[in-house]
This record gives sequence, structure tokens and C-alpha cells, in this order.
Amino acid sequence: MDLIYLDNAATTKAYKEIDEVISNFNQNLYFNPSALYKPSVDVFVEINSAREYIKQSLYAPDGDLIFLSGGSEADNTALFCSKKKKGCRIIVGGGEHDAINNSANQLLAQGYDVVFAPINPDGSVNIEEYTKLVTPQTELVSIMHVSNETGAVNDIARMVKILKRVAPKALFHSDGVQAFEKINVNLRALGVDMYSISGHKIHGPKGIGALFVKKGVSIKPLIYGGGQEGGYRSGTESTALIMALKKAVEINNVRFKENKEFTSKYVSVLKTQLESRISDLKFITPENGCGNILTLAFPKVRGEVLLHAVEKYGILCGIGSACSSHHESRFKKLLGLDDDHRDGIIRFSVSEFNDINEIDKVVDAVYTEWKTLADIGRI
Amino acid sequence: MDLIYLDNAATTKAYKEIDEVISNFNQNLYFNPSALYKPSVDVFVEINSAREYIKQSLYAPDGDLIFLSGGSEADNTALFCSKKKKGCRIIVGGGEHDAINNSANQLLAQGYDVVFAPINPDGSVNIEEYTKLVTPQTELVSIMHVSNETGAVNDIARMVKILKRVAPKALFHSDGVQAFEKINVNLRALGVDMYSISGHKIHGPKGIGALFVKKGVSIKPLIYGGGQEGGYRSGTESTALIMALKKAVEINNVRFKENKEFTSKYVSVLKTQLESRISDLKFITPENGCGNILTLAFPKVRGEVLLHAVEKYGILCGIGSACSSHHESRFKKLLGLDDDHRDGIIRFSVSEFNDINEIDKVVDAVYTEWKTLADIGRI
Repeated sequence: MDLIYLDNAATTKAYKEIDEVISNFNQNLYFNPSALYKPSVDVFVEINSAREYIKQSLYAPDGDLIFLSGGSEADNTALFCSKKKKGCRIIVGGGEHDAINNSANQLLAQGYDVVFAPINPDGSVNIEEYTKLVTPQTELVSIMHVSNETGAVNDIARMVKILKRVAPKALFHSDGVQAFEKINVNLRALGVDMYSISGHKIHGPKGIGALFVKKGVSIKPLIYGGGQEGGYRSGTESTALIMALKKAVEINNVRFKENKEFTSKYVSVLKTQLESRISDLKFITPENGCGNILTLAFPKVRGEVLLHAVEKYGILCGIGSACSSHHESRFKKLLGLDDDHRDGIIRFSVSEFNDINEIDKVVDAVYTEWKTLADIGRI
Repeated sequence: MDLIYLDNAATTKAYKEIDEVISNFNQNLYFNPSALYKPSVDVFVEINSAREYIKQSLYAPDGDLIFLSGGSEADNTALFCSKKKKGCRIIVGGGEHDAINNSANQLLAQGYDVVFAPINPDGSVNIEEYTKLVTPQTELVSIMHVSNETGAVNDIARMVKILKRVAPKALFHSDGVQAFEKINVNLRALGVDMYSISGHKIHGPKGIGALFVKKGVSIKPLIYGGGQEGGYRSGTESTALIMALKKAVEINNVRFKENKEFTSKYVSVLKTQLESRISDLKFITPENGCGNILTLAFPKVRGEVLLHAVEKYGILCGIGSACSSHHESRFKKLLGLDDDHRDGIIRFSVSEFNDINEIDKVVDAVYTEWKTLADIGRI
């Protein structure tokens, strides 16, 4: 049975070109970038070219792009390793990924004044509530660019301005893992001090990500050792993955406009078709979301049950962050859904590897299975 | 020009089979192991099979094997995240890799009573001196199994016993990055509580490693988030790299005996031939070293100059830890070499990908270049 993969916010199938890059660096250019001979220096130069290319792709201001093992490490580095006074105020979004949320809870336990900015029913941060939390004692804010749960886009530029007006020296970090290569990202326009990206959400490899750190921002390493990555992140560089990440960014950049058209179309068809067949369906993803994610709440079913029901058609989708799917989601509690919808959340996230025929099949299967489950009251 | 790669202690060329595994998981089995549908569960099961296989290969007692981004992260996790009282004594070897040494210096700065065990002229820890440092207040020891600088093998089992006699609850960590698949490693026999391994030193991929943690040992995460790896290490699992690491271990296990014969032969020929041509050559690597590393000190030359001189023959070798090669090595100061040899250190490290003809060429080239440099007094 052919699979229809609609969980691209959890992870993506890698581009074929990625494997060629990885193989080339594993077999031919495997030298330790820190060694002294010419072939190693060449690899070191390649890594720096990847760094510059990705910085340009982010429209980054002056600063460093630190390669590390992925979005979670990038988020942890931003939260734990940025310079801040003990006990200062730290604001994080209420709907952040666990890599931020659980790090923030650690900082809370360490005595920092950590507060969580309430979110709107679409998963975005409520700017009014956020504004009330900003104090002159605030030294760090972390709010994701795009919600991994709903695809809602936060107005980061505005929130940065609100922060800096009250606390000019405070740092603003944004987790851009779900934003990069899905929406326009321009770090100069956003004004953030730190920004996280990940390879495996953009058809690159798992195990690689990066943290952009603006010039002048003081951070210490999360991992100490040989002093790679300008001293910010030790450990032999995973050259193959870094170069594969660069390749994924290149391909995404070329296809960006076309991909957005296709993925928006898929999401729009899914939405319109399901809406016409299922009354009382609640759309959590806002109209102006990132475009490739559609999160909705079905009435009278459990999302998990519906997910497994459509799996027999080969359809793979999510019920929210895959990373926390083994636990009860703290996120769904925040959305303020009524009793009929609270447990019926499903997240479809599409990519360029989908096609419109798949979407039609999904609509049929989801409707059929939902109807069966709702009719028998399987909740 | 064909390269003769003799810096396998810095990193290794990957097995070709590694690339096939990576490609399979990137293209076909790319699902997020934490998602709920069957294909994800299958990947999760694969990861656990890799975990069990590697634990068996280490002859590990009951405990967890945590996959993470490499040896440096494993070492940092062992040092920073193991449970210990503020201010307790921590003993680390004087010749540890920077991932341990620099982490230990951080702990020192945080107020821990960190002491460094002096090393012998061959790079191994001096057991007598080590014993003097063990106190009932000692809560953590970290001593590498095999020196990355010299190939000397530490008697970990003995040092564990010495520790536990005086401080029964103290934890013993060993960095096994240079030992695993090079010498016999049996964690049950060693008696360690934690042990670090790395993929790229054994013809596996860069960007993957593991920390073994014995049952009952309390550690907290270095990276917080979705709670992967049993809660010990968050971040989407790099499935492809984990499975590639398993593959590398499988191949190493099959070839272990044969590889040891060949690499020992190469090292032995190198040693005998160079000794017969260059009088006053100092061998730092002891007779009972790990077998694939030969570190020596040439008289009247700088190691770095000789390294570059032989590079024109395509010969690539090291002057010690590649990871710190951009800095002045703290290590060579510890070896107690006389003025004539102090700066003349070269490390040859061989692998199964070498052959005996290469070794003959290396002897000729090294001798020729050393003689020229020594004659003109280029120091």
C-alpha cells in the first residue's frame, strides 16, 4: 500500500541529493576539519561556505551561525547559555515546543522569574498578554516563529520591538524550526538576537541544526571540548550533515515559491472539502498560517483514534507535536476548545512530495472514518 | 596523487555500507520515531535494536545506552549531568581529551574540588598518583580508556576498584572513544558506571555517539525537550546515524581480530623501520598500547613542520588530538620530553584501509624529510 505522508511538521523525507552529499563527505572528504593538512583545511572552508550560505538564506545580520545537533540543542543553547542575571525575568510562549518549554521549567526551578505568555485559540501568542509580561527586569524572551502545533505565525518583529522598548538589553530568541523555508524569514527584519533552525523539517538530514547568534550577544557553550564552531560548540563537526543541510537549503530556496503554491493548495483543498462534509468541524490553524499545516478539531472523536483509523488507508498524520505525542499534550488544554472538540485534534502537514490526488483520497478516508466513529460514539 | 591517510585517531573514512543505511533511513524510513503510526513505531523498534546490539558489543551490564551527537556530548553529559554534591571532589586524568578537560575546568570554576591525575611519560594515568587523590569525598572520576594522543591503555578496572574501596558511591566514567573496537572492551569487567563511544572513530558517521549509563546511576539531561532516549536526551532521534552506527559496530565486530593483526603489523613496521634509520627517536606510545596508534618524538624538528613536509607525498598524519590542533597542545607539556624532542611529536594512526605498501612509502618519506629538516636545523 502506498503511504500518504501528511506529518511533515514532525519530520520530512530527505531529498535524494542529500544522500549524495553525505556519501561524498563520508567517503572522500571525511577528514577532521580541525586537522592541519590541506584536505582538512578544504573541508573547514566548505563548512564555512555552508555557514555563510545559510546566513544569507536567513537574511541574517552580522553574527555567528553555530552548527549543532538539531533544533532542540539550538533551543537549549539559547535558553541556558545566553548571558543573564540570576533571577531575572524570562518570558516564553505558552505554546512553545518542549525543547523550550521544558528548558524554561528548568530555569524556573533554578530560580529565574520565568513566565509563560498566554496563547490565542489559534496557537499564536496573545500580544496584549505578552506586552503585560514585559518588564525592565526581562532579560530573555523565547517565542517561536511558527507554531508546530497549528502553523500560526507569530508577529516576532512586533514582539521584539515591544521588548526592546521596555528592556533594551534583553535578548529575543525565536525557534524558527517550523518557519525556515516554509514562510519568508528575514532575521534583519525580525530583529531577533537568536534563531533556531533544523535540518529534518526541510527535507534535510536528522541530527543537524543551527543557532544564529547576532553579533554582540554573549553566550557560553552547552558542550565544551575542542573549541569547534568558534568555541561555541565543541565536538568534531558533522561535516556530511552540515553540507547536506546546505544542500537542503539550496533546494528549498530554489523551489520556495512553487512549493508554497502547491502546499497552500493542498491545505486549502483539505480544508474546503472537509468543511463541506463535516459540520461543526473546528479549524484551529488561522487563515494567515504558515501554509503547510492544517490543524483541526473533529467533533465527537478522539484524534488518536481517528489517526489510527485512517492509517489503514496508508494515511499518516499527527495529533500535534510528534515529540511529545507519547505524553498527554499540554498544548491542547491551552486552546480553550469545548468538550465536544477538545480531544479531536488532528494535524495535517503537507510538503512538496504530496500531490493533489493524495489529498482527495485523504478527504474521503477521513470523512468515512470520522463518520463511522462519530456515529458509534467512539470517543 | 593518492593519499596515505594515517590520522585515523582524528577521524576515519566511513564504511561504504554506512551510506546505504543512511540513505535507506533518509528516503524510506524517515518517520519521526515518536509519532504514533506503525511506520514510526517500526523505526523506534529499530533504534532499540541498535541500542541492544551496541550494549551487547560493549558487554555492558544492566543500564541505558543513550544515543547523542558524539563523544564530546557524551563526555559533557557524564561530567555535568551526573548527580553529585556541590563542592565534592572530582578526579580527571591529566591527559584527557578536551571534552573532559575543559568540562572539568568549568566544574572547577563552579566550585567543585577538581583535581587532575598526573600522567606517565607514555600518556597513561599514573596509578600511584591517582590513588593519592582518591578521597572519601570523591564523587566522580573520569579517566579515558585509551589515550587519543599516545594510544596508551589505562587500567580502568584497577582504578575503578581503587575508587570504590575508598568512595563506594562515587561514579567512574571512562571516555572509550579511542578504545571501542580497537581493543577488547568489556564494561562488566571494567566496572565503570558510564562509558562514552563515538561513531566516526570506527568508520561510522560523524555526529553520532552514545553514553552508556549503568542501572542505578542518576543523571539528568544535558538537552531538554520531547523526552526522547528515555528522557535522558531530547531531540528527534537521528535514526539514520544511529542505524549507521549499529552497522559500523557490526562490521567492526566481524573484522575485529583481523583488523587488529593488520593495524598492529603496520604500527610495528613503522616503528622498527623508523627506529633503524633515525637514531635518538623517542617512542611515546608504550609497547602495550591500543595497537593502531604510534606517537613518537623526532629530534631536532617541529612536528608541525614535518607533518607539512610529508604532506607533499600525500601522507596525512597528526601531531596529537586534531580537536585541539589549532591551539598549543597542553598535552605535550605533560610528557616530560627533553628540549630536543619536545616539539617533535607526530602521531601516526592506522586503520584497516591502510596497506603495507603505504607504510613503506611513509617510512621513506618521513626519513627523507626529517633528515633534510634536521640537517638544516629547521626547528
